[in-house]
Amino acid sequence: MFQLQEIVDRLGGDLLGEPALAVARVATLEQAGEGDLAFLANRKYVAQARACAATALIVSPDAVEQMSGRSLIVTPDPYLYFARVAQLFSPPPAVQPGVHRLAAVACAVPGSVQVGPGASIEEGVELGEDVVIGPNCHVGRGTRIGRGTRLAANVTIYHDCVIGEDCILHAGVVIGADGFGFARERSGAWVKIPQVGRVLIGNDVEIGANTTIDRGALDDTVIGDGVKLDNLIQIAHNVRIGDHTIMAGCAGVAGSAQIGARCMIGGQAGISGHLNIADDVVVSAWTLVAKSIPKAGVYTSNLPLQTHGDWVRNFSHLRHLDALAKRVRHLEQQNNDGPKDRDPG
Amino acid sequence: MFQLQEIVDRLGGDLLGEPALAVARVATLEQAGEGDLAFLANRKYVAQARACAATALIVSPDAVEQMSGRSLIVTPDPYLYFARVAQLFSPPPAVQPGVHRLAAVACAVPGSVQVGPGASIEEGVELGEDVVIGPNCHVGRGTRIGRGTRLAANVTIYHDCVIGEDCILHAGVVIGADGFGFARERSGAWVKIPQVGRVLIGNDVEIGANTTIDRGALDDTVIGDGVKLDNLIQIAHNVRIGDHTIMAGCAGVAGSAQIGARCMIGGQAGISGHLNIADDVVVSAWTLVAKSIPKAGVYTSNLPLQTHGDWVRNFSHLRHLDALAKRVRHLEQQNNDGPKDRDPG
Amino acid sequence: MFQLQEIVDRLGGDLLGEPALAVARVATLEQAGEGDLAFLANRKYVAQARACAATALIVSPDAVEQMSGRSLIVTPDPYLYFARVAQLFSPPPAVQPGVHRLAAVACAVPGSVQVGPGASIEEGVELGEDVVIGPNCHVGRGTRIGRGTRLAANVTIYHDCVIGEDCILHAGVVIGADGFGFARERSGAWVKIPQVGRVLIGNDVEIGANTTIDRGALDDTVIGDGVKLDNLIQIAHNVRIGDHTIMAGCAGVAGSAQIGARCMIGGQAGISGHLNIADDVVVSAWTLVAKSIPKAGVYTSNLPLQTHGDWVRNFSHLRHLDALAKRVRHLEQQNNDGPKDRDPG
Repeated sequence: MFQLQEIVDRLGGDLLGEPALAVARVATLEQAGEGDLAFLANRKYVAQARACAATALIVSPDAVEQMSGRSLIVTPDPYLYFARVAQLFSPPPAVQPGVHRLAAVACAVPGSVQVGPGASIEEGVELGEDVVIGPNCHVGRGTRIGRGTRLAANVTIYHDCVIGEDCILHAGVVIGADGFGFARERSGAWVKIPQVGRVLIGNDVEIGANTTIDRGALDDTVIGDGVKLDNLIQIAHNVRIGDHTIMAGCAGVAGSAQIGARCMIGGQAGISGHLNIADDVVVSAWTLVAKSIPKAGVYTSNLPLQTHGDWVRNFSHLRHLDALAKRVRHLEQQNNDGPKDRDPG
Repeated sequence: MFQLQEIVDRLGGDLLGEPALAVARVATLEQAGEGDLAFLANRKYVAQARACAATALIVSPDAVEQMSGRSLIVTPDPYLYFARVAQLFSPPPAVQPGVHRLAAVACAVPGSVQVGPGASIEEGVELGEDVVIGPNCHVGRGTRIGRGTRLAANVTIYHDCVIGEDCILHAGVVIGADGFGFARERSGAWVKIPQVGRVLIGNDVEIGANTTIDRGALDDTVIGDGVKLDNLIQIAHNVRIGDHTIMAGCAGVAGSAQIGARCMIGGQAGISGHLNIADDVVVSAWTLVAKSIPKAGVYTSNLPLQTHGDWVRNFSHLRHLDALAKRVRHLEQQNNDGPKDRDPG
Repeated sequence: MFQLQEIVDRLGGDLLGEPALAVARVATLEQAGEGDLAFLANRKYVAQARACAATALIVSPDAVEQMSGRSLIVTPDPYLYFARVAQLFSPPPAVQPGVHRLAAVACAVPGSVQVGPGASIEEGVELGEDVVIGPNCHVGRGTRIGRGTRLAANVTIYHDCVIGEDCILHAGVVIGADGFGFARERSGAWVKIPQVGRVLIGNDVEIGANTTIDRGALDDTVIGDGVKLDNLIQIAHNVRIGDHTIMAGCAGVAGSAQIGARCMIGGQAGISGHLNIADDVVVSAWTLVAKSIPKAGVYTSNLPLQTHGDWVRNFSHLRHLDALAKRVRHLEQQNNDGPKDRDPG
């Protein structure tokens, strides 16, 4: 429970209304009831906001006039403010320091660190203060994990990687598995190239469940500060991702691709190897990036949904586009040549 | 070993042939031999069925005439009947009740429950009768798991989720990791929005290996009864999936999408966020659904395979489709304007 | 540290230069410094190779002339040679035999085998010499694992599977989960078909992190010798993959597909069920294979990247391709009919 005044004292914003009003949680306009703090992030929901049962609302300055009579926190970016209030109401669970009796730990562990049951930590691992190693995680020899970073259950970090501070690694994440590198014999058989690079992860990085980030072949794989990766993403060896880039679920990045800062990569997007993507690039969901993108902007290559019948009718032509284009060129030539050619009679 | 009469007594169907004949397993028409029960699910394999070495066959009424001389179980849907007989021959392994000495359990465990080595179960977890928690699984505080549900190895369920009865969660499944929710600061940095919703999963749900289902942001993520999810599927926060919907491997569903009942979603399909898909919709493999589908039917958007050379030739035109369409329009205008415009001489 | 002569003695190749020169690691042309052995795999980097600070270089015979004055190892395939030297410098870590006290092992374990903390191995499992079972792995009853095979952490192998010799299974891999097989009731509910086949994996197979390979329904799923699978790949039940085929990250193969030997399948590619792909087929990244490929070659079906604006402009026509083609046909008919039809005046 926070009083509105307390919230504004901590997070800023202008309070219009009763400072002593108490709210217990944040809620959407739809769900909000007595004791809730809702937020209006989009002007098209003004009517809903006026009618909503929330005790108070977070709104932008230009919405104040239409919300008269309501208790308001006014801030330029209500959605961002909502995120901060939500953190206030729902802080991460407190670290419960100690090493579980069923953990296997071969390194020094600071007193503030929590190591869950079934965790195994090899020799030479360095753990910062307040680190949480979840149940059944494995941390390989020589890896360093920065202060405040939390590993959920069943996370695997291979040897000699570096994870920054205040990161969150969700369950099933795998960091530092061998990159996919092989040389081919004449017989067709593949000879493994040992992957001796590392994975270096910055601070404030969040990595979704079952996402995998491979170690580099000779050089390192590098993930910048503040990067957010969703679930089931594949980051191949020697990829470099700039600060604050965000990537949605099931995206895949092939080896040695370099992605700039503040990029937004859509779900199931694919990024080919050995290319460069500039800062501030947005790649739509379900889009393949097979060449470098030197300039900020929004890039897309996906297909419109159709009924199966329309798809059959329309897409049968895709295999004959070149012929179609040639037929159009031929028609143009006929027309340019005038009617004589077409009507020899 | 079951006699044909026993099978029909348990599962229904009409027996034509020797009731005392014993069969020991089900098999395909190709593989079936002495002691096997095969099934004819598709009339185009009648000849193969007649020649097959199986001791008996499951057939539909309209195939009986052509199978004279064979021992038959006659049923309207032989494939469904095959599934039921296969369950008879291969029931799930019996639960072996007890908590392994290497498990870490902080809740009450019914006597009929099996908890494997390395499993960790936090306080306040409620387990129904006959639940199996596999090796190295983790179940977070306050989660409820219904009667008869089985977790294979290395499954992670976060706190406060609800799993129904008779579900199967395969190895590496992650339920209830944080949804992917962030608000952006002007600097480009992302502020985490705490994910305080839950995951609610119905009864008779099967979830494939390494599939991930995120918890809701404010509201819950909801999976209906009888839903079947294949491997490596990503279900984002606040998604709702209706009863008996089935989804093939590597599909991805973005946040707040609502999918109806009895839908069939193909492999590697993508479903964008905040849209609605009606009941009984079929989405083809490898298809992106970027807008709502209000009506049952089959929907597709994928590309025809080509040799690389044909692909280069044909798909180079995709970046110039608009120009091509304009050229066609221009030709039409020329033609409609008559020959004068085209032959000013 | 190896002297050049030692390397050539072990791996072949012709030594041009000082036999006693010692090198400590392999490096790229860019990174190489004193004590490094670099390689020139592509003639376009000759200038860089000449300038590079490496102590010695691996080159092909046709590059020798341009590299005069440098210490060289000459071999027909420098990249392959590099792979072998890299293995010399970075052999896999030695097996540390023994069963960790926190492992739960119900089978006989050869003295040369390493079993990590939290591992659980059920009855009837057969382990070859020098096998490594990583931390928190689970191996189900009756499974056989061949000599020298290594499982990283958190790997799950279900019951009754067969893994060959000298394989590497990376963290989070799941082998032998149930295939995705159901029969549908009239109500729309799905009846599970027990999956009683196995997974059979050959020798020298490497499987990337969080990749899943399902067990067969009635028959087995089969992975040939020398197959290399990247991370987050889904192999469905009854798939068969020929020897030395390689598959990049996030690819998906649907049930009963048969893939030949020495194929190369690109990242995020999809292969539909019940089809055949010949030997030596190359499938480009992000390509759907929805029909059989009876002949070796390169096959592609993916989309060109566009700015979002160009994409809107161009791809809006995809839903009207059939109409466009009909308009072109109509124009052709008009032209063939001569100007009379078009200029009735």
